[in-house]
Amino acid sequence: MDSPLNSEIESFFDSAPPLNDRAAISEKLKEFIALNSSESGKGSRSPLLIIAKYTISYIHCHVTISFTIRRVACVTSGGTTVPLEQRCVRYIDNFSSGHRGAASTEHLIKMGYAVIFLYRRGTCEPYCSSLPDDAFLECFEVTKESAVQVCQPYSEAVKRAIRDHHAAVAGGLLLKLPFTTIFEYLQMLQMIAVSSRSLGPCSMFYLAAAVSDFYVPWKSMAEHKIQSGSGPLDIQLLQVPKMLSVLRKEWAPMAFCISFKLETDAEILLEKADMARKKYGMHAVVANELLSRKEQVVVVTNNGKIPVYRDKTSSDSDVEKPLTKLLVDRHSVYIKDSNT
Amino acid sequence: MDSPLNSEIESFFDSAPPLNDRAAISEKLKEFIALNSSESGKGSRSPLLIIAKYTISYIHCHVTISFTIRRVACVTSGGTTVPLEQRCVRYIDNFSSGHRGAASTEHLIKMGYAVIFLYRRGTCEPYCSSLPDDAFLECFEVTKESAVQVCQPYSEAVKRAIRDHHAAVAGGLLLKLPFTTIFEYLQMLQMIAVSSRSLGPCSMFYLAAAVSDFYVPWKSMAEHKIQSGSGPLDIQLLQVPKMLSVLRKEWAPMAFCISFKLETDAEILLEKADMARKKYGMHAVVANELLSRKEQVVVVTNNGKIPVYRDKTSSDSDVEKPLTKLLVDRHSVYIKDSNT
Repeated sequence: MDSPLNSEIESFFDSAPPLNDRAAISEKLKEFIALNSSESGKGSRSPLLIIAKYTISYIHCHVTISFTIRRVACVTSGGTTVPLEQRCVRYIDNFSSGHRGAASTEHLIKMGYAVIFLYRRGTCEPYCSSLPDDAFLECFEVTKESAVQVCQPYSEAVKRAIRDHHAAVAGGLLLKLPFTTIFEYLQMLQMIAVSSRSLGPCSMFYLAAAVSDFYVPWKSMAEHKIQSGSGPLDIQLLQVPKMLSVLRKEWAPMAFCISFKLETDAEILLEKADMARKKYGMHAVVANELLSRKEQVVVVTNNGKIPVYRDKTSSDSDVEKPLTKLLVDRHSVYIKDSNT
Repeated sequence: MDSPLNSEIESFFDSAPPLNDRAAISEKLKEFIALNSSESGKGSRSPLLIIAKYTISYIHCHVTISFTIRRVACVTSGGTTVPLEQRCVRYIDNFSSGHRGAASTEHLIKMGYAVIFLYRRGTCEPYCSSLPDDAFLECFEVTKESAVQVCQPYSEAVKRAIRDHHAAVAGGLLLKLPFTTIFEYLQMLQMIAVSSRSLGPCSMFYLAAAVSDFYVPWKSMAEHKIQSGSGPLDIQLLQVPKMLSVLRKEWAPMAFCISFKLETDAEILLEKADMARKKYGMHAVVANELLSRKEQVVVVTNNGKIPVYRDKTSSDSDVEKPLTKLLVDRHSVYIKDSNT
């Protein structure tokens, strides 16, 4: 680790306040990955799961062992905060409802993946993406007999949401890990990546979170709430080192990696997405424009740019369905190529 | 409006993007206030409601008309965002879960108030404050017979939450108005204050929202997402003009006004709270310190400083219960004094 980027990354992690619950997160990750890479996993095996073949060479003896291994995706979701004070009252945030990450997680689980959902506390969670914003208060009522019942017209959606969520968690197919700050997010992403190494090419990183580009290093941050009353405020922010390169090269070099590029200016979007793909060695970059992102995105790969549209003939379809389908197909090819 | 403060305020409002749904909000407010200031209001009258007496003097004839009028509180809750781009991807935010505003609203309604709950979209809502963060997914399960049922141990809390929320909304005692940005918040606060004028001293402003002190004027804001990649970022922010003075003096001069002061440094808290009380003419300022704010606060009035503690002998009590009780008592005295 002696390139300028690596020293920036080292200085970022050195400066970050340590995770409060690192040991508990590490334990959960270990368990989740063990469960989903063993034959005795709780979840049933889907026919979509690809058999991974590992060839062990030992002097003159070649043994090929075949076993099934569930694909595991780490889906990141929601925006990261950048605190402006150590005892944080104010922070910079990135706009993200978390809808894309939550909906994509549902589709990936349906297609046989186990998902580590690394999400911003309070943003949309899997199986809630089709419900109203304050689902809890809007979807239920208490009958005269003092029973809680689901209001129409939410009945079917609510049942499906609760049932599918319970099934995914109980089946060991969904691990939800919440974060708030950029410091928590990047430390947790590193932990997940390193823990997922054993999955080889069966691991996918689906990096839909809106990650801050700028931050204030912990050590140069004001301790207390910045006082108002003395005129305008100037804030100097450093660039967050680009962790995508180090994720690809060091943390999880065998994983299939997809990043997301959001712009408000459609003119520069595709070019920036392609630059990011090349610069960080991503297998695909999903380009989305703020206003049209729920209707269409463009998947940028080394084979070209593939537009993906929401199915407009169905009112309850989303763009995440064809998007995840396309990326899962690409992942299948990637696993196949890695094994030959 | 020609003082330096007033010209700052004018320039803030001139610069703000107009509210999308101003007409609909105005209609809702008018209806809610009419409902709660007429004898034929839907809600039942609580014995706690004070009879307001207005004396009409007309030359030599003095007529005293007595009629009941429900007290109406505007409770503000959650943090306001300050966009850094017009097509907003990044913004500055203030830490606030909205728990204090939500819990206080519940207590005020219980004590006979109607509440206009002006809250940050996505933060805690009244009747949800005692439930887990992702209440929707944690509190329910689907039975084998495909019915939705409440999991133990949430059964009673969930029923109470749903029932009380429905009763408050159906009874015309709770109007929820969500905001996101500082621009929306201050425009909506002004609308509420001006609409509440007819309630005279029966109107209360309980300003628990964490309002930004600094902002970027709309007209000098970047249109598109600020690009990273060219080194550190400098942000210059102007001070948000202090609207508390204008609320007291112009928007709602008869209302009983309580503001909140949050600091991380206990050393300066009480002094700053008392300065704010004097400067903005507040009837009370609630001083709270970031780490201890759920256990104790200090109510600063012109009669001195009154500490308020959570009742530690009861596990489900909160500091908002004794706090709202104290402030309602003060409001009663204020109404009485205003009528004599």
